Amino acid sequence: MPDYFPNVKKIKYEGPDSKNALSFKHYKASQKILGKTMEDHFRFAVCYWHTFKGLGTDPFGGPTMIRNYDDAPDEDTQRRQTMEAAFEFFQKLGVKFWCFHDADIAPEGETLDESQRRLDDVAKQAKKLQKETGIKLLWGTSNMFSHRRFMSGAATNPDPAIFAYAGAKVKKALEVTKYLGGEGYVFWGGREGYETLLNTDMGRELDHLARFLHMAVDYKKKIKFKGQFFIEPKPKEPTKHQYDFDAASCHAFLQKYDLDKHLKLNIEANHATLAGHTFIHELEYAVANDLLGSVDANRGDELLGWDTDQFPTNLYDTTLAMYTILKAGGFKAGGLNFDAKLRRQSIDPVDLFHAHIGAMDAFARGLKAAAKMIKDKKFEKIIQKRYSGWDTAFGQKIESGKATLEDMDAYTRKHGDPEPQSGRQELLENILNEYIL
Amino acid sequence: MPDYFPNVKKIKYEGPDSKNALSFKHYKASQKILGKTMEDHFRFAVCYWHTFKGLGTDPFGGPTMIRNYDDAPDEDTQRRQTMEAAFEFFQKLGVKFWCFHDADIAPEGETLDESQRRLDDVAKQAKKLQKETGIKLLWGTSNMFSHRRFMSGAATNPDPAIFAYAGAKVKKALEVTKYLGGEGYVFWGGREGYETLLNTDMGRELDHLARFLHMAVDYKKKIKFKGQFFIEPKPKEPTKHQYDFDAASCHAFLQKYDLDKHLKLNIEANHATLAGHTFIHELEYAVANDLLGSVDANRGDELLGWDTDQFPTNLYDTTLAMYTILKAGGFKAGGLNFDAKLRRQSIDPVDLFHAHIGAMDAFARGLKAAAKMIKDKKFEKIIQKRYSGWDTAFGQKIESGKATLEDMDAYTRKHGDPEPQSGRQELLENILNEYIL
Amino acid sequence: MPDYFPNVKKIKYEGPDSKNALSFKHYKASQKILGKTMEDHFRFAVCYWHTFKGLGTDPFGGPTMIRNYDDAPDEDTQRRQTMEAAFEFFQKLGVKFWCFHDADIAPEGETLDESQRRLDDVAKQAKKLQKETGIKLLWGTSNMFSHRRFMSGAATNPDPAIFAYAGAKVKKALEVTKYLGGEGYVFWGGREGYETLLNTDMGRELDHLARFLHMAVDYKKKIKFKGQFFIEPKPKEPTKHQYDFDAASCHAFLQKYDLDKHLKLNIEANHATLAGHTFIHELEYAVANDLLGSVDANRGDELLGWDTDQFPTNLYDTTLAMYTILKAGGFKAGGLNFDAKLRRQSIDPVDLFHAHIGAMDAFARGLKAAAKMIKDKKFEKIIQKRYSGWDTAFGQKIESGKATLEDMDAYTRKHGDPEPQSGRQELLENILNEYIL
Amino acid sequence: MPDYFPNVKKIKYEGPDSKNALSFKHYKASQKILGKTMEDHFRFAVCYWHTFKGLGTDPFGGPTMIRNYDDAPDEDTQRRQTMEAAFEFFQKLGVKFWCFHDADIAPEGETLDESQRRLDDVAKQAKKLQKETGIKLLWGTSNMFSHRRFMSGAATNPDPAIFAYAGAKVKKALEVTKYLGGEGYVFWGGREGYETLLNTDMGRELDHLARFLHMAVDYKKKIKFKGQFFIEPKPKEPTKHQYDFDAASCHAFLQKYDLDKHLKLNIEANHATLAGHTFIHELEYAVANDLLGSVDANRGDELLGWDTDQFPTNLYDTTLAMYTILKAGGFKAGGLNFDAKLRRQSIDPVDLFHAHIGAMDAFARGLKAAAKMIKDKKFEKIIQKRYSGWDTAFGQKIESGKATLEDMDAYTRKHGDPEPQSGRQELLENILNEYIL
Repeated sequence: MPDYFPNVKKIKYEGPDSKNALSFKHYKASQKILGKTMEDHFRFAVCYWHTFKGLGTDPFGGPTMIRNYDDAPDEDTQRRQTMEAAFEFFQKLGVKFWCFHDADIAPEGETLDESQRRLDDVAKQAKKLQKETGIKLLWGTSNMFSHRRFMSGAATNPDPAIFAYAGAKVKKALEVTKYLGGEGYVFWGGREGYETLLNTDMGRELDHLARFLHMAVDYKKKIKFKGQFFIEPKPKEPTKHQYDFDAASCHAFLQKYDLDKHLKLNIEANHATLAGHTFIHELEYAVANDLLGSVDANRGDELLGWDTDQFPTNLYDTTLAMYTILKAGGFKAGGLNFDAKLRRQSIDPVDLFHAHIGAMDAFARGLKAAAKMIKDKKFEKIIQKRYSGWDTAFGQKIESGKATLEDMDAYTRKHGDPEPQSGRQELLENILNEYIL
Repeated sequence: MPDYFPNVKKIKYEGPDSKNALSFKHYKASQKILGKTMEDHFRFAVCYWHTFKGLGTDPFGGPTMIRNYDDAPDEDTQRRQTMEAAFEFFQKLGVKFWCFHDADIAPEGETLDESQRRLDDVAKQAKKLQKETGIKLLWGTSNMFSHRRFMSGAATNPDPAIFAYAGAKVKKALEVTKYLGGEGYVFWGGREGYETLLNTDMGRELDHLARFLHMAVDYKKKIKFKGQFFIEPKPKEPTKHQYDFDAASCHAFLQKYDLDKHLKLNIEANHATLAGHTFIHELEYAVANDLLGSVDANRGDELLGWDTDQFPTNLYDTTLAMYTILKAGGFKAGGLNFDAKLRRQSIDPVDLFHAHIGAMDAFARGLKAAAKMIKDKKFEKIIQKRYSGWDTAFGQKIESGKATLEDMDAYTRKHGDPEPQSGRQELLENILNEYIL
Repeated sequence: MPDYFPNVKKIKYEGPDSKNALSFKHYKASQKILGKTMEDHFRFAVCYWHTFKGLGTDPFGGPTMIRNYDDAPDEDTQRRQTMEAAFEFFQKLGVKFWCFHDADIAPEGETLDESQRRLDDVAKQAKKLQKETGIKLLWGTSNMFSHRRFMSGAATNPDPAIFAYAGAKVKKALEVTKYLGGEGYVFWGGREGYETLLNTDMGRELDHLARFLHMAVDYKKKIKFKGQFFIEPKPKEPTKHQYDFDAASCHAFLQKYDLDKHLKLNIEANHATLAGHTFIHELEYAVANDLLGSVDANRGDELLGWDTDQFPTNLYDTTLAMYTILKAGGFKAGGLNFDAKLRRQSIDPVDLFHAHIGAMDAFARGLKAAAKMIKDKKFEKIIQKRYSGWDTAFGQKIESGKATLEDMDAYTRKHGDPEPQSGRQELLENILNEYIL
Repeated sequence: MPDYFPNVKKIKYEGPDSKNALSFKHYKASQKILGKTMEDHFRFAVCYWHTFKGLGTDPFGGPTMIRNYDDAPDEDTQRRQTMEAAFEFFQKLGVKFWCFHDADIAPEGETLDESQRRLDDVAKQAKKLQKETGIKLLWGTSNMFSHRRFMSGAATNPDPAIFAYAGAKVKKALEVTKYLGGEGYVFWGGREGYETLLNTDMGRELDHLARFLHMAVDYKKKIKFKGQFFIEPKPKEPTKHQYDFDAASCHAFLQKYDLDKHLKLNIEANHATLAGHTFIHELEYAVANDLLGSVDANRGDELLGWDTDQFPTNLYDTTLAMYTILKAGGFKAGGLNFDAKLRRQSIDPVDLFHAHIGAMDAFARGLKAAAKMIKDKKFEKIIQKRYSGWDTAFGQKIESGKATLEDMDAYTRKHGDPEPQSGRQELLENILNEYIL
């Protein structure tokens, strides 16, 4: 097997004082935090699409990155070289998981048959590489947004023939995901929305989307695929409006169509901010509604209105995300997938290493800080005290559903106007700053 | 009774060629459109808070408007004069409905008793004025966001004593709304959200909010108030994040807590755009999920990030909103409430008339255009044709829930790759322009 | 010459009652408005890049549009067919101007020589077609943002060799623009900005940009090109931050580097809203500072954070834009260039006609409304009255620069606290609505 | 003199391990960094308006904060108590500067005379307190946006009588600022913009604004006030559009009207983000154009569209701001003024201390990190290398203005297509993370 990244050796933990940019300064896979290794906390995954198939294009420019594994006489060779390069990268980086769309590991052919032949071929190769390396599939999915046939949606397409085509693709992608031992399967409906309401029947489209997911749930049972289903919120882009706008929109949809037992959320940081929420808000919403599934760990630019998919390096975000995830008991089927891409100007293969190393280190710092926050209980105690009135008999009567508006009126007449208490936001922000490592 | 607007006579319909700025050019209350009078289509309501109590303040400046009804020796007189002026305004403008918060018709006193005394007093006056004029109450509500006690929320306050105070207020507001024959009651939770997640227990707060609404539902039944309950989405402002972010968030919440039978939505145009949606999107979402209740008819500025609450004059919005509302069968308990305020520089009482006249004319033009769109069926036919595949046997099999992913696969193998059809957005936008009156 | 749009005949004016979607309902080229034909008012131009080379791609999907002129055995044929199709389109639509980038009329070859050979070849063809049809070039430009060499900027590139390459391209593009009789030349610096300040020397880059433009000014003189230079503001996208952020940023830059004599602004509607301004604001700013040059007539979606480049159909925008342009005396070298693209789902060639027809009709309605506003002088009189204090002796003393703060103090002590006057915004918005045709 | 903050002693530096929330963990006034004390680097100032006169109001609610110094029998006493409390606060916090608007140290009276009497009275008190404590005035200013007379602008008001009133106020404010030894004077034109272009003459208003500033420049010379003039950019809020939109807009304006010699910029972090820029961008722009004056140190919420004026605690911002300021040679007349306010729920006086301590500590950490960045030269070297081509003979020829487009063409033909170099953004972001303390 050729060496696609000949100038990079396996990335090692060298500690914060290392001068080696190609080392971890904070992430040490085997280090135990709150009784679990870092590796098990994070379940880091590398995404195939951006990392190996993204070449720096943007709406105003063509590719900037030139990769040696793309230098091939035919599609078969190119595809296989890419998969080899990917596993070399996973190993050198030291992650245990990867994720893919059907169309990035196997570019679509002229016919469905040819597309699926490619997919079977590359899946076989991947299975072998997985076995050799011990690296596992976090989740698979099907790309139903790039090809022109999906321009008006897949499951929400006005044409049932396209809905059917999407169904055929998902059927296959589920089979391949199962074949590769995937721990989950993600639905991101990049075109499940609308460009203009003038040509759209929203109610009918939502019904179709629900039917589609129910078919997938049924097929999953039939083939005994045990992975977890995830739905991924995003408000817009590429569409003007996407139905899975944010965690709450997905929650509304899943409840309405009796799907909330079958799907959890795959929360992406950048999708959160595009929807007008913080990343942490979306995580907390998911936790509060028992919907936390997996995380697409990246970062947006809040001054830009599109999905920049930058690598996650903000220590506030990594700290608070890990704090929320730890409080919720950590990941089950999900993990932290780096759905992030190099900047257009970061054209060298070594930039892929810098990007992932920085992100993993940022999460390692976040985890350590979050673990300290959990142990110190400073925030926990402040919240406990703030809501302590609800633990009294009066609070409990309300929470238990036994109180009435008349009771509220009587209580108020007896106790008078309550004095509000400081929310102490500035103090809490100062405390948080002391935890940032 | 004194004349508070001595320079303005009753506003009449004078037609589009009138040179009189104080006349309707398009709104004619009695004119029938699709078999119903304009008046009955719109159920226009004037809001008490902005129109009579808003004085042009903003975060950087004090009041700019000086009103004659505020010139009074004591609070009782001032309050009563304001109510008199309001009914004079309703009559001169020719609307049949009004809306209020407890705190704007009766400013809070030192104690709950005093506040409620004022409220009873003014309600009595209002009832008399309603009887004399035939003007009705579209909906009432309780302000649970202005007073400092509610700074950390009302139903979602960390302190159950403040939750109780809010309960006492809603109890009274429901009674007063019933007393005045209100056709609905609105919940807008201006502080039901958070400033920082660092001090917030989101799950517990959401549970409390649901408990609160259940209490209100129970009390409504108990006192036999027949009005419709509405919940009003808004994403933020004054809070960093409000739980009732948008229609979908409310939908998720109502379903989770078994409240969807009891509340419909009060959609506000400006709140829609603050949440990243169009006004029409929120209406369509409400219709698609059987949640359309009432409308706060105003307009935001999409380049500004706060609730500008401008009067609705955009003919695209009024046309498309009325098209959606007509398609949904029109208003039942709800109506079009002008939750809009004069610009800070529009300091004269006559500006109140200009503002409402312009809004009513804009909706009249919108209604006429929408009715023409309904009759012509141009849009309806294009949509029907676009989705016609779903009316075939294959489409129906999917919609009925009898199809499987294997069926999708088989269909696709048989029929091959489907050819997508143009969405014709530009043509549709051209057609819409031809309807704009 | 083959017929590339065989199903579309020359678009004619048929008036507002026509049922023919492929006719003008409002735009009549020869109709005189305020003493000038519509054609001369607008100077409509079709852009080559979106209209003939845009195929519906977006960041999440490949092309959706398939064009007959792209079906060719080699690049030369494809390029020439495209140019033929373009002139057929210009003629059938009935516009008198077109615009291009070097790279869209002649895709870059392997070497600069080959690129320039293609450019010369196609320029010769275009010159012939221009002569045959009477259609003229509104402006030309060079694409210095798509190729990977420009990923870090052209004139602001950290590498002077790339700056030089850009210089070579502009030299040629100026020559070709002159050869084709172009009335102007546009500079849009799509990559002239930064992705991160961490690797950027902003001051040095700005100096280089100024040097670059001075070289172009010098070369323009040398070759006796008489066209007007335009600079086009855009705040961001593709870059994180573009130096020509908005009209005011360009104004600051042009003044600092003594370029304000040589360049005027090319204002794009969608760029205005991306910068947080209205389209009209940018036009008014340009007029107030004698910088109005040309207009990229399109429309954005204020709820989306990227350049949607939709066709301009909003009648408020077309009316107010034409009102501002008329007040400023109309276009000199510039015109209205439709820098707009079909929606991804509008895949048929006929959609190109619908899109342009709708835009031209929308501007025709806007022009008629604006002309009426000019004739009626309603707005003019209101403004005149509002500022009339400045025409008094006291106002004139201030305006002439002869007054001091002491004079202000003395005036105030003599006259007391001035009473503010209503700004009448709602009335003005109502009046505007009456002009919307 | 009474003790207005009896529960808080002078805040001391106790180091990072202190458990005392009312201590500095990082800010040590006397500690030298790069040869200058922290105190001299920052020139921290407390603002009078938010800190002592802000009581937690927002557009949806009244005050939440109750202050002991406001408990007074009359305005004179209240005003003087507030000033006493302020100086107690400055001393306990340990800052050396403060800032004010005329209207917050002396609320406007019924007449200009009464307003100025109050101002003189409180200025006398402040001068005495300054002398006693050694605390100095960083800058003064006049509030010309809160009173209704200024609703349509001060210097850009359509009525010259209001322009005159503003002039009288600025005259006095300049005198008082000089009397108090102020090191600068700020112009923030909160209403210098427009609500609607329909009633606005933009060009004339800009001319008036320039006239106004020239009068102030003249008067400054006349009274021999040596302080620096600053203009403060803000894009909007309270107005729809403010002329001083951002640093570049101010730069354009100052150049056009020959004011760039007389005014520098007062950059506010939150205003930067409202304008679509980062705080650091605005600082870098100011530095690149020799306009850096002073800084309003606060923080916005990029997901909210209004001026949240939060205390600055983000370590990325404090680090990069101090890095830029250090590179530019530090502050001259300006400093870091905390134009920030407590959250509405932070109602206790002690919250004022938490807020300022956290901000000062955040800047201390930022300064230490920035000093390390300066010493290590990692970023400097990367940038130097990146632009090194410009230091060659070819680069220098271009920079010196001697090169032509023909030279560019010749160079390119000789050297061929240049190969772009990676921008290394991810690596740089990783390096930055290692500096975050």
